[in-house]
Amino acid sequence: MAVVVMKFGGTSVANVERIRNVALHVKREVEAGNKVAVVVSAMSGATNQLVSWVREASLLHDAREYDAVVATGEQVTAGLLAIVLQSMGLQARSWQGWQIPIITSGAHGSARILDVKADDLAARIHGGEIAVVTGFQGIEPDSGRISTLGRGGSDTSAVALAVALHADVCDIYTDVDGVYTTDPRIVSKAKRLPKVSYEEMLEMASLGSKVLQTRSVELAMVYRMRVRVLSSFVSPEGMEPVRIGELENIGTMVCDEDQIVEQQVVSGIAYAKDEAKVTILKVEDKPGVAARIFGPLADASINVDMIVQNVAPDGKSTDMTFTVQAAELPRTLEVLKAAKSDIGYFDVKASADVVKISVIGIGMRSHAGVAAQMFKALSEKGINILAISTSEIKISVLIDAAYAELAVRTLHTLYGLDAA
Amino acid sequence: MAVVVMKFGGTSVANVERIRNVALHVKREVEAGNKVAVVVSAMSGATNQLVSWVREASLLHDAREYDAVVATGEQVTAGLLAIVLQSMGLQARSWQGWQIPIITSGAHGSARILDVKADDLAARIHGGEIAVVTGFQGIEPDSGRISTLGRGGSDTSAVALAVALHADVCDIYTDVDGVYTTDPRIVSKAKRLPKVSYEEMLEMASLGSKVLQTRSVELAMVYRMRVRVLSSFVSPEGMEPVRIGELENIGTMVCDEDQIVEQQVVSGIAYAKDEAKVTILKVEDKPGVAARIFGPLADASINVDMIVQNVAPDGKSTDMTFTVQAAELPRTLEVLKAAKSDIGYFDVKASADVVKISVIGIGMRSHAGVAAQMFKALSEKGINILAISTSEIKISVLIDAAYAELAVRTLHTLYGLDAA
Repeated sequence: MAVVVMKFGGTSVANVERIRNVALHVKREVEAGNKVAVVVSAMSGATNQLVSWVREASLLHDAREYDAVVATGEQVTAGLLAIVLQSMGLQARSWQGWQIPIITSGAHGSARILDVKADDLAARIHGGEIAVVTGFQGIEPDSGRISTLGRGGSDTSAVALAVALHADVCDIYTDVDGVYTTDPRIVSKAKRLPKVSYEEMLEMASLGSKVLQTRSVELAMVYRMRVRVLSSFVSPEGMEPVRIGELENIGTMVCDEDQIVEQQVVSGIAYAKDEAKVTILKVEDKPGVAARIFGPLADASINVDMIVQNVAPDGKSTDMTFTVQAAELPRTLEVLKAAKSDIGYFDVKASADVVKISVIGIGMRSHAGVAAQMFKALSEKGINILAISTSEIKISVLIDAAYAELAVRTLHTLYGLDAA
Repeated sequence: MAVVVMKFGGTSVANVERIRNVALHVKREVEAGNKVAVVVSAMSGATNQLVSWVREASLLHDAREYDAVVATGEQVTAGLLAIVLQSMGLQARSWQGWQIPIITSGAHGSARILDVKADDLAARIHGGEIAVVTGFQGIEPDSGRISTLGRGGSDTSAVALAVALHADVCDIYTDVDGVYTTDPRIVSKAKRLPKVSYEEMLEMASLGSKVLQTRSVELAMVYRMRVRVLSSFVSPEGMEPVRIGELENIGTMVCDEDQIVEQQVVSGIAYAKDEAKVTILKVEDKPGVAARIFGPLADASINVDMIVQNVAPDGKSTDMTFTVQAAELPRTLEVLKAAKSDIGYFDVKASADVVKISVIGIGMRSHAGVAAQMFKALSEKGINILAISTSEIKISVLIDAAYAELAVRTLHTLYGLDAA
């Protein structure tokens, strides 16, 4: 017997027929003797419809009202799934975030989960009832109003609930059957990873892999909750129910690195196309200039990622290159224009035709030379590196967008990730 | 300054553009210095979509889950209206039934409002904030689960909230501009009634007029809450805000009969087409036979309306005729068939080609001869009366459905209701 949290995303519950398929996955776990809580997203398309109504009502809307409207999507799915489970002869009830309650911060629209008071719910699932929980939402306790966690927040709801229930595993059902060494649409030889460490998954999630929401991985890492990524689109009958100790057979297990016996130096290659490069030409090269550039950007809540500074031959001025999210580019240029006299520069150039390629692997901690191999391989293909950033377990390079696929394939082969 | 509850039905909030029109009605009241709570239904069509998903999930569904799903419709409208009001520079917030809370019984799907704990909400509206409240729903306090009041329940929500807020008036905005002497689609000379008593409105509501939900009228009558029926489809600018003492100019005021100075003998003619007539032939005419017929029907929760008993010439057997809702006819026949040996009868005949025409008026209490006039006028047109039932303020007759329009027009003229 295990306590299992199962999370199903929007495409997995897109209509009543698919909800019936989800119910069969749940039934399999219950019939194996597991205690089950299910976290559901809104039916795919529902959230977009709700958001578009809110925008039509007013572009400058109260985030608390946005949350009240948008949270209804998950409420509908949870009720429908409970009904389908009951029709299969199973005990089930729906729970909305405020009913559990899932306590969040007051940052409506992008709230953080602060606590999950799951005692009542836990007692019921141990009594044999399936809890069907609305993802993506909670309650702000001071105002008593509904809050939402932001897009993709249902993954975080699932992990937080798994932590509160001391679950054995948190299974995230999605439209792919696991985490791959890279995007299979680009590299047909990409392999499913049976296991990946929290740290690697965190880099992959924040570097463009859309499989799991970054905050859900952070939360899992903090509480050492094992998370599996699985496909809901396989036949529920063809899958084995959760048996503790046998969790590696399907999907990808996100877990502590200690649980990964055969560590690869590099586990995966990620890419992010939503980057933009900004170069400020001929900035005076003296102390404080970086603060005068990045201070106003931080004040405008614009996140700056990679930064490269090229000292000019004359020793007096410098060119400063950095990246921001492509969506933030127009605002970035406005901020820089407004601060021009304060910063003191000749001109600003910008381009969104860039891509960030990242090589990720826990093994890099103990293996030197990974970066050197990478730079050499890209150079041999004639790919120019525009900027570099590194962490203990990843190396990211910014390159011309036209070379994205070539770079990903080259690196995938270089680090021995191609499937046989 | 007055405290005003304004209720808008599904067609009045069918899309964001219409919600904007509703907001202009609200703004007019606020700018006149009134304190306002608004009760909204789901956008028209939304509830039907939600109900159809529930039915697709399972025809035999848990009423608590049905409520959780279906209650989302009003939640969406309330949030959107709050956003639109804010965009017009007004202070507003949405309230869900459980947030106020509106306490209901546990009869999910057709719950009754037991209490409205509106202290917090009242303090806020007196502080100048507009409360936008979800109609149709509340919370069952023991389980903490969402309950709904059944179709049309938003009228009842509005009246209950008006009572809790000690409102001066509860304005029900709908797609007609008031209560008419009869259905204007049948009688073009039908007149809007400036005032109608609770008792008359109750008869009209339960006899087929769809303007107000019966329970909302009962509640208004018990608490002597003045209710106005108004159209939301007139230009908000063309309407005067609520000024106490001047409430009779538009729409129809439903109020205490003491407040109606010039009482008509007959206020209106209602008709109901969803009746069915059942005749049981040759029942033994002895004590206890009525109990043997109507007992099993009551056990099956089938409401019997008009009853006529014709003693047969032989003095030994009798024919028993009664009416039920047409939708209940198949079940009624099943119940009678099952009880045949117990009742003892020759045969059962049934017809849904009947209509119930009712003449309603408080003045009938003090005027004799209304019924005699009615029977005579119908007889002169060759209309046969199949059954009769009366109360202190109404007379209903059952006739062949083919004569419905003729009967309504004849009676409308007879009692002097035709507009000049």
